[in-house]
Amino acid sequence: MSELNLLRQTIHFEDPLPLQSGASLSHYDLVVETYGKLNAQANNAVLICHALNASHHVAGPSPDDPKDIGWWDNMVGPGKPVDTNLFFVIGVNNLGSCFGSTGPMSINPESKEPYGAHFPVVTVEDWVEAQARLADRLGIRCFAAVMGGSLGGMQAMAWATQYPERVAHCVVIASTPKLSAQNIAFNEVARNAILSDPDFHGGNYYKYGVVPKSGLRLARMVGHITYLSGDDMAEKFGRDLQRAVGASDEYKFSFDVEFAVESYLRHQGDKFSTYFDANTYLLITRALDYFDPARRFDGDLSRALAKAQAQFLVISFSTDWRFAPERSREIVKALLDNKHQVTYAEIDAPHGHDAFLLDDLRYHGIARAYFEKIYEQIETKIGST
Amino acid sequence: MSELNLLRQTIHFEDPLPLQSGASLSHYDLVVETYGKLNAQANNAVLICHALNASHHVAGPSPDDPKDIGWWDNMVGPGKPVDTNLFFVIGVNNLGSCFGSTGPMSINPESKEPYGAHFPVVTVEDWVEAQARLADRLGIRCFAAVMGGSLGGMQAMAWATQYPERVAHCVVIASTPKLSAQNIAFNEVARNAILSDPDFHGGNYYKYGVVPKSGLRLARMVGHITYLSGDDMAEKFGRDLQRAVGASDEYKFSFDVEFAVESYLRHQGDKFSTYFDANTYLLITRALDYFDPARRFDGDLSRALAKAQAQFLVISFSTDWRFAPERSREIVKALLDNKHQVTYAEIDAPHGHDAFLLDDLRYHGIARAYFEKIYEQIETKIGST
Repeated sequence: MSELNLLRQTIHFEDPLPLQSGASLSHYDLVVETYGKLNAQANNAVLICHALNASHHVAGPSPDDPKDIGWWDNMVGPGKPVDTNLFFVIGVNNLGSCFGSTGPMSINPESKEPYGAHFPVVTVEDWVEAQARLADRLGIRCFAAVMGGSLGGMQAMAWATQYPERVAHCVVIASTPKLSAQNIAFNEVARNAILSDPDFHGGNYYKYGVVPKSGLRLARMVGHITYLSGDDMAEKFGRDLQRAVGASDEYKFSFDVEFAVESYLRHQGDKFSTYFDANTYLLITRALDYFDPARRFDGDLSRALAKAQAQFLVISFSTDWRFAPERSREIVKALLDNKHQVTYAEIDAPHGHDAFLLDDLRYHGIARAYFEKIYEQIETKIGST
Repeated sequence: MSELNLLRQTIHFEDPLPLQSGASLSHYDLVVETYGKLNAQANNAVLICHALNASHHVAGPSPDDPKDIGWWDNMVGPGKPVDTNLFFVIGVNNLGSCFGSTGPMSINPESKEPYGAHFPVVTVEDWVEAQARLADRLGIRCFAAVMGGSLGGMQAMAWATQYPERVAHCVVIASTPKLSAQNIAFNEVARNAILSDPDFHGGNYYKYGVVPKSGLRLARMVGHITYLSGDDMAEKFGRDLQRAVGASDEYKFSFDVEFAVESYLRHQGDKFSTYFDANTYLLITRALDYFDPARRFDGDLSRALAKAQAQFLVISFSTDWRFAPERSREIVKALLDNKHQVTYAEIDAPHGHDAFLLDDLRYHGIARAYFEKIYEQIETKIGST
């Protein structure tokens, strides 16, 4: 088999899902993509958890738009570090997101209108609960690995303690055990941009036929700055002016786009505001803010991670100032305090937080080697049964 | 004399001021505060240049509101590092600002309406030209020192090359020879928040009786994040919840203020939006973006600073990630390349960019010692004439 074997499905769940907030979802859909094949022992499954603006569509060309390539296609696929010739890989769009799973744009069964502002606040832990039900439905008792970058890494960590016996390996990339005040501050600015957009209509903009486009655009612009390293921005744009070839390189003395970096940010913001849902942006940034597994243990992350049984791979990137290596080292320390098995790699990469999505030889080399080891363990287990 | 001897005046200039953009201001006012007394030789004058949101009101209680203390009151005054018992200190509100000097809120003599969006883009170099005319008017041929922090430091640098013979000492604090792509990116987000506020009305909001409050608020919030260090934010707020004493410390699961850092940022943004002008925000951030003295010298800062004659004091702060010490070292290197006299201090302070406004023993100690040296030079000169 060297096909990606992509299968996209929408799975409906009828049992109410109680949420951390006290609310519950009476029933819900999850959009899921799978790649590769689940083996007979059902022990080669890898769950990929997405971050803020990604989705179930992890690898390969989308079934409905061949030009839409999965967001982690360089990591997942036949012959890739997470090799779909060996592993059965699952991508799932989280609750509250805007790519088909139940979220603010879905119809609220009570009001028969889109949920909008009435969609409940969801947390990383809630997502894990929903993902666990998905695993049940797919017949997966224990994942070979749960894996994610950034917010996805938080989900992997949460899995390791919410369902310790269901995760053999936990792969946490460019993540953090909790947001810093500065991280929260950036999220707060982004949310305020959306909340103060007159087209937001208190979250119920769908029925007005508008979207808070300028709020979303600003949210994305500020977010984007935090995804890149300062050096990376300097390298990519520096103080280059945005000019047609041969045009004057004198300043224009205006507030229009003048520098290349402005053009880039506006473009990113514009593009984002055409496809992403503002309520989802609020929900997912809040899930980031709230994640703090040590909170119930007086801030002691070691105690919070005590009951994990998985082996861990933790990876950070030197120029990531959003979730700096220091934050990953906190996770590593807490795991070591518990004598958990952990492999830690700090990758010297120039691309800031975004590095986890990019194709870097050393980074992918480590991921590849780690998943080869996982596969050997699976083989051994199959051989011994 | 141990009085501050504050004198506030509005000085009118009739000669048209040609600007870098090619536009000109036909006539204009500058609001000025002076402290201390100009000596008979007129060689004890210190010009204080302000940054984004400050004004002419540098020291002491404001004449019209005793509770309004000058923005650099810990630095300037009787017995302070810049001792007004010895020096004649001048604070001037820059053109385009919103504290009384001619700016977007002023009446455009051509249209008889507020300038609004028609106020010309002004640059650091333009401000220096206006300040030079002010110096002429005040009878100051050569400043004992031109001094500023952040954007104020850029003005001091510009003085040293635009009027080399008129600056004995140049004091550049928490500044940079030019904005980085990341610096520009943050400014661009702030400007876009203002430009996309429906109450902005293309910059001519005055006649609608509104101000783009939510845009200004967002601009300030994002700015504020860059003024503090991450560690400082962690120290001040951490992940503390914003709660009344004795209230539950459970999450509220909402998008309202939840964390203390959110409350702080909203408060800062709200406060700012009540007193600052949005067009001024656009103008001053653009002046920051455009400043790049090396630009006319193929990016060679050493050549750009070649004709300076002043002695320099350059100060940076270890946790300032907006204009990091590295940026100050670029200035120092360029000065040394020219064999200019420069004293450089890198202060280990936790408060990020804002540190230049705070009372830090080592920082103020260096400033004090340096100004004592300046005064000795003045005394010597007076003695020898």
